[in-house]
Amino acid sequence: MDRPAFTQLISALSGDRTPRVWSLLVTVFGELAQEREARISGSVLSQLTELIGIKPEAMRVALHRLRKDGWIDSQRQGRNSAYFLTDWGRAQSAAASPRIYASEPESDDAWLVLTDPGQPAAADATGGAWISSNMLIAPRPPELAGLFATRIDAGAALPGWMTGKICSAETAELSRDLAQRLQVVQRSTAQSSGLSPLQCAALRVLIVHSWRRIVLKIPALPDRYFPAPWAGAQCRQSVTALLAQLPKPALADLEAVIAG
Amino acid sequence: MDRPAFTQLISALSGDRTPRVWSLLVTVFGELAQEREARISGSVLSQLTELIGIKPEAMRVALHRLRKDGWIDSQRQGRNSAYFLTDWGRAQSAAASPRIYASEPESDDAWLVLTDPGQPAAADATGGAWISSNMLIAPRPPELAGLFATRIDAGAALPGWMTGKICSAETAELSRDLAQRLQVVQRSTAQSSGLSPLQCAALRVLIVHSWRRIVLKIPALPDRYFPAPWAGAQCRQSVTALLAQLPKPALADLEAVIAG
Repeated sequence: MDRPAFTQLISALSGDRTPRVWSLLVTVFGELAQEREARISGSVLSQLTELIGIKPEAMRVALHRLRKDGWIDSQRQGRNSAYFLTDWGRAQSAAASPRIYASEPESDDAWLVLTDPGQPAAADATGGAWISSNMLIAPRPPELAGLFATRIDAGAALPGWMTGKICSAETAELSRDLAQRLQVVQRSTAQSSGLSPLQCAALRVLIVHSWRRIVLKIPALPDRYFPAPWAGAQCRQSVTALLAQLPKPALADLEAVIAG
Repeated sequence: MDRPAFTQLISALSGDRTPRVWSLLVTVFGELAQEREARISGSVLSQLTELIGIKPEAMRVALHRLRKDGWIDSQRQGRNSAYFLTDWGRAQSAAASPRIYASEPESDDAWLVLTDPGQPAAADATGGAWISSNMLIAPRPPELAGLFATRIDAGAALPGWMTGKICSAETAELSRDLAQRLQVVQRSTAQSSGLSPLQCAALRVLIVHSWRRIVLKIPALPDRYFPAPWAGAQCRQSVTALLAQLPKPALADLEAVIAG
């Protein structure tokens, strides 16, 4: 795809927002270099982020910060540097991947958990949402005594004061916006083929990153419990379709392209 | 049954407690004279309550209060007075009867109902129990918007801070005590027959009254949600068995016995 057309595609996907570079690089490593021995050269990182519209200086600052925070490390490779996830960074990345890349909602059920209002007890809130100080909606039954828990009827409707605690209005709006942008990308990529491996990688990174910013913010609860205009189900569907349609380039191919 | 044996039976049933006469008379009218045209003579009331251990003066005071409160009214019949439920009293009595005389628990299911903690809404709490200001356990699903409601899993266990709001420790103790007393009565009445119609009526009244004092205090929720040592299921079973075993005398027969 020629450069102007690709820039237009990137802009249709990300809009006016420039992604936060630090966070975007976490997505790059998670998408392309999550394996233990994987290394990404500085050149590939530069070209990839430049395609997404990130300035070289911003990328260098972000790489520095990621290294300082223990996410990545680097080693010299001739005149170039190669970057890779630390053990800790890889663990973080691996922990988030199932949620980011899931083609199905994590849970189709939810449990209502209540703790003693007079004596709040800790409950495992992983993946769940606190509705009030003693009221939790959780994707699985808790294993703590002194709690009350019941599976929520499949047909039960959640009132606004509950759905608003499951997902903010802003995040619901973000998901609707992204669902529309992903549809545009699906139409564009279906019509025009001929993406280079680097373009493919950049597009995949940006798709994954856009969805990651939403999906890691929300509880792992059924989509039907989210407030309007939540469009997470559409986003998940489009992301899955696009990732299947856009072949994931091997790191070695990207390095070869750059070197060539 | 001779008088000492019967007195012993009454005492086994009611223990040291003398029932509140006013309340006991409500049971008497509900048990014997709930029909629109039913009248009970002062003589039958006297003999019935005396068999239960109530002093004539206490009964007169209670009758006066019941009339003042609009439960009953009276009319002269020759040298005697006849008492009967007012329309309002009959309505109260009829409303309570299904719960008092039920041989099965009212509901085998329960719904958890939550109202907005920030903006408490009215919910129909009839037969239910408030666990906290915005948390209700109800015998049926509510029909109000803005509430959350889900049927409680059949297997869900309620923690102590919930069961304690469904039934107080005192009421649970009362039920255990009554269950034991009813068993004694069941053994006694199974061995010895020969109760007079008036004794039969007095015993039925006291059995119904003992259970009524408990059952009208508690929500219409499944027995499994009540705290130990709740024995309501046993009480219900014993009351049902005893009422089936002790024939209910017709008012006319009681009046005839007294007149004779």
